[in-house]
Amino acid sequence: MLEKLKEEIYEANMLLPKYDLVTFTWGNVSGFDDETGYFVIKPSGVEYDVLKPEDMVVVDLEGNKIEGKYNPSSDTPTHVELYKAFPTMKGIVHTHSAWATSWAQAGRSIPCYGTTHADYMYGEIPCVRCLTKEEIEGAYEKNTGLLIAECFKEKDPEAVPAVLCKNHGVFTWGKDGKEAVHNAVVVEEVAKMAARCEMINPQVEPAPQALQDKHYFRKHGENAYYGQK
Amino acid sequence: MLEKLKEEIYEANMLLPKYDLVTFTWGNVSGFDDETGYFVIKPSGVEYDVLKPEDMVVVDLEGNKIEGKYNPSSDTPTHVELYKAFPTMKGIVHTHSAWATSWAQAGRSIPCYGTTHADYMYGEIPCVRCLTKEEIEGAYEKNTGLLIAECFKEKDPEAVPAVLCKNHGVFTWGKDGKEAVHNAVVVEEVAKMAARCEMINPQVEPAPQALQDKHYFRKHGENAYYGQK
Amino acid sequence: MLEKLKEEIYEANMLLPKYDLVTFTWGNVSGFDDETGYFVIKPSGVEYDVLKPEDMVVVDLEGNKIEGKYNPSSDTPTHVELYKAFPTMKGIVHTHSAWATSWAQAGRSIPCYGTTHADYMYGEIPCVRCLTKEEIEGAYEKNTGLLIAECFKEKDPEAVPAVLCKNHGVFTWGKDGKEAVHNAVVVEEVAKMAARCEMINPQVEPAPQALQDKHYFRKHGENAYYGQK
Amino acid sequence: MLEKLKEEIYEANMLLPKYDLVTFTWGNVSGFDDETGYFVIKPSGVEYDVLKPEDMVVVDLEGNKIEGKYNPSSDTPTHVELYKAFPTMKGIVHTHSAWATSWAQAGRSIPCYGTTHADYMYGEIPCVRCLTKEEIEGAYEKNTGLLIAECFKEKDPEAVPAVLCKNHGVFTWGKDGKEAVHNAVVVEEVAKMAARCEMINPQVEPAPQALQDKHYFRKHGENAYYGQK
Repeated sequence: MLEKLKEEIYEANMLLPKYDLVTFTWGNVSGFDDETGYFVIKPSGVEYDVLKPEDMVVVDLEGNKIEGKYNPSSDTPTHVELYKAFPTMKGIVHTHSAWATSWAQAGRSIPCYGTTHADYMYGEIPCVRCLTKEEIEGAYEKNTGLLIAECFKEKDPEAVPAVLCKNHGVFTWGKDGKEAVHNAVVVEEVAKMAARCEMINPQVEPAPQALQDKHYFRKHGENAYYGQK
Repeated sequence: MLEKLKEEIYEANMLLPKYDLVTFTWGNVSGFDDETGYFVIKPSGVEYDVLKPEDMVVVDLEGNKIEGKYNPSSDTPTHVELYKAFPTMKGIVHTHSAWATSWAQAGRSIPCYGTTHADYMYGEIPCVRCLTKEEIEGAYEKNTGLLIAECFKEKDPEAVPAVLCKNHGVFTWGKDGKEAVHNAVVVEEVAKMAARCEMINPQVEPAPQALQDKHYFRKHGENAYYGQK
Repeated sequence: MLEKLKEEIYEANMLLPKYDLVTFTWGNVSGFDDETGYFVIKPSGVEYDVLKPEDMVVVDLEGNKIEGKYNPSSDTPTHVELYKAFPTMKGIVHTHSAWATSWAQAGRSIPCYGTTHADYMYGEIPCVRCLTKEEIEGAYEKNTGLLIAECFKEKDPEAVPAVLCKNHGVFTWGKDGKEAVHNAVVVEEVAKMAARCEMINPQVEPAPQALQDKHYFRKHGENAYYGQK
Repeated sequence: MLEKLKEEIYEANMLLPKYDLVTFTWGNVSGFDDETGYFVIKPSGVEYDVLKPEDMVVVDLEGNKIEGKYNPSSDTPTHVELYKAFPTMKGIVHTHSAWATSWAQAGRSIPCYGTTHADYMYGEIPCVRCLTKEEIEGAYEKNTGLLIAECFKEKDPEAVPAVLCKNHGVFTWGKDGKEAVHNAVVVEEVAKMAARCEMINPQVEPAPQALQDKHYFRKHGENAYYGQK
């Protein structure tokens, strides 16, 4: 079942090593199917160089495995909560990509210092707090999803398609798995340049709001004029 | 039309990923044709791995598309203003290369700390101010070009073939597209070493003027003796 | 003799350049054979691109060469002391990988700042003191092993499969050579992110203990649920 | 003439891009022939991807071109002075490799923070002062060589086969071109780790002298026991 989506999500997973976003198996991509209400996700702990499209696991929105010979990613309950909370998300990525994770470990949101960031993300990339002892010892991965969902109650997840989880790593999303990976690449690049920028000028301020607006709306919304549309 | 220039500018564009100066489509190269007064530029938002010579777009100095199936780069009005202001520029590059953009985001010009810089650029690589709200909300890309042109009224664009745009990225230029890309590589390398040099010695001073003169004029002008000329 | 182990340890050695953990010959892997009580180790100073399985050297637990045309690694006495002190170690790696060695040179243990670290290492990665003048001028490599063994008297070497040697480099271990190399990759990645994390937030604190426990025991021990077991 | 040496020095030059020590043509290797008293050096400004063994230039110790269709490297007079001052040097490398050049631009000698450095270089890698205005405006490249020679009057160039030139780059040497390149790789690696080490611990001290002695003499001199000799 969902053979086409499995192929797509397999391809999206394989982009993670291509773009140098994962070491070993430290990442996963999933994609949601509107018709069935199921999603397809990477199996847990399977190495990228042996991964095959048919290894992808089908899961429902209660986290039950519907099909697949492997266990789904251990982060599956986080994906479940995100798909439940945000109907516009159709693809989700989790990685420990090095620069983004360094910001997550530092417990800091990434300020918007320039147009590279503003072209894709409207405002800072938030870093949610660490879970409490109770949340960690309980349904840890589910609580991670709930915490992200709470953070985005006041934000538009389409305008900021990424979040840092304190002491952990990064989640990004999009209209499909491939776009979610694209956003994961953007976050890593933006995280690298923001850290270096603060090293070069410790007093640096975020880019002016007018510039952030200009670049974001140059690529998004009805007045967009970037690209071929 | 301009098939040879299209091929050249296509090749120059393909050097950007080769030298690791672009992620996705975050960059473009153009080249000017003296005879027609037109220039050739990368189409907007087209991925490098599918780009072909015939995709290049021909534009006139008022920014009108003369030929091409695609829209030209959204940065075309910046290129227009630069070609209009500086008749010696025959190739222009724009990128968000990571180290140069970190300096641009930091809002700092790159001091000349050594001979690698002095071999190509005479004095600091300037960082122009961010545009005002009015300039951003008006003809943003054109105003970017006008601001760079104003900065170089007091400088020789052949002696300093590069500029940083605050909160944005870098523009470089040269006698053709290939030389402009060459200068983009130099800026990225120089930006990296200047940042690391300040980390190693926060009190570092620019290289002595005599050394800057020596290296610049060893490679440029009538007394140059570097290379095979 | 021990042809299968030689092949395995050869393969494990070849992973060091693959994962960019060594420059020239600055590293080695060994593996222990329970039946004979011997171990197999890389020959000293032989370049990786000419190394062959049959070049591996067989050594006993008193450091005597049992078989092999080459001298064993000059670090052999360190491997000897570790195998003697810790019966669960079956593979050992030594490298000068750049980020881990930077921490070792800095004389600092690597704090656990996040789940990437906690997934593999329970608590900080210790940096043992530099040897004394007497220890250095005496049986230097053996004394290095004794110092590590002393450090791990109070620690579980399976829970923290890595150590930094001040002013020197890193040793990691595991249930075989391949796992020891896997841990060497983890240490390098964790060392990189910890350094960057402190650069981004100089006041950063280690990850909460509950989170460290969660991630470590998600992958280790009888309640582990990561992967396919 | 000197066909074998030309081939060797060509191969040594080609190692510079292989080890990522040069951008464009920012580096050169030469090798000395005892019999003729000539040396062979890379031609000036010729790109590495078109370089051929027969392009190497033969020069005498007064800097005259003896054979070759190209001009020799513009740094030839520096090589001349070094060969004249130090009869044990048989190969010399000059690069602008990024980390070493960052230290040179910072005007700092590289302290010996660990055994990676001590294995190859006995004590700090010195950074010579910038030339004076007079020295720069006079015989610049020759004066660079004289300044290095003066620095090494009180040092053993075999024990410290490298030097940083303030605001410029690095020179390394050895018993042939290949060993000189080997030392250039070491300097770059050591420069990188020393900078990161100071970032991780700004109060870091050099490695104890006993450790520096141990590692240096483990690989050099009559009591050496590293490798297969």
